[in-house]
Amino acid sequence: MSDPIEEGLLLAPKFDADGLVTCVVTDAKSGELLMVAHMNAEALKRTVESGEAWYFSRSRKALWKKGESSGHTQRVVEMRVDCDQDAVWIKVEQAGPGACHTGRRSCFYRAVPLGQGAAASVRLEFRDADKAFDPHEVYGGTTPKSDS
Amino acid sequence: MSDPIEEGLLLAPKFDADGLVTCVVTDAKSGELLMVAHMNAEALKRTVESGEAWYFSRSRKALWKKGESSGHTQRVVEMRVDCDQDAVWIKVEQAGPGACHTGRRSCFYRAVPLGQGAAASVRLEFRDADKAFDPHEVYGGTTPKSDS
Repeated sequence: MSDPIEEGLLLAPKFDADGLVTCVVTDAKSGELLMVAHMNAEALKRTVESGEAWYFSRSRKALWKKGESSGHTQRVVEMRVDCDQDAVWIKVEQAGPGACHTGRRSCFYRAVPLGQGAAASVRLEFRDADKAFDPHEVYGGTTPKSDS
Repeated sequence: MSDPIEEGLLLAPKFDADGLVTCVVTDAKSGELLMVAHMNAEALKRTVESGEAWYFSRSRKALWKKGESSGHTQRVVEMRVDCDQDAVWIKVEQAGPGACHTGRRSCFYRAVPLGQGAAASVRLEFRDADKAFDPHEVYGGTTPKSDS
């Protein structure tokens, strides 16, 4: 018999002990990975119903709408759920120049070199790390923190 | 002063309360999102040092090498880490026809319709959901479970 979670048509998110699912966010046009965030039941509900991205901040323990401070909102073009429903993937139209609070287009602006010996001595390499906006300007003079 | 976690060259993973970081896995050639998994310190170390994908199964509470049962290993072409270092992204060459234990190429084979009223009454839609392999055959007659 097929597993209803994996083969069924019912959205039945498998929230973790903290009540969250992982959310992978890619650019709908370029396919680029922009960020990884988390959604609780309310954030998922608001995203599904409004088509705008809502998340739950693990650090602030609060619901947040992407772009509420920066104006860099995300319109969701497509949402998918994975086999065991503990992760969702949204393809978004990113308003403004970037998704990352550091001012980059994507949060993934550093590479980890592979196969070069002990992981503990690895040095990261910046890639596609140009700033797309000035975070101090966008966040009104305060130093923004990651909300993931 | 810039934040060393966000702007530094040191790999300093921010493991969660369970000792895990999120890992987003895309196909190095097509860019397609294949799966989302988790890594503990040991899985991350092995991946960085060997260039082959290792994960930590939250359900089985065990380290696993992708493909150890199925033969569908993943060679890591590039690894990136995000701004606050609680997520990594690996671009992989996927051995075999697919990454998902259900037999699909990707775990994300169902779409969640948006803006159609209450999230609770949403019905999923299968997309790109053709089976790429027979999971019962690949996993030796047993019904495989998600390892995420």
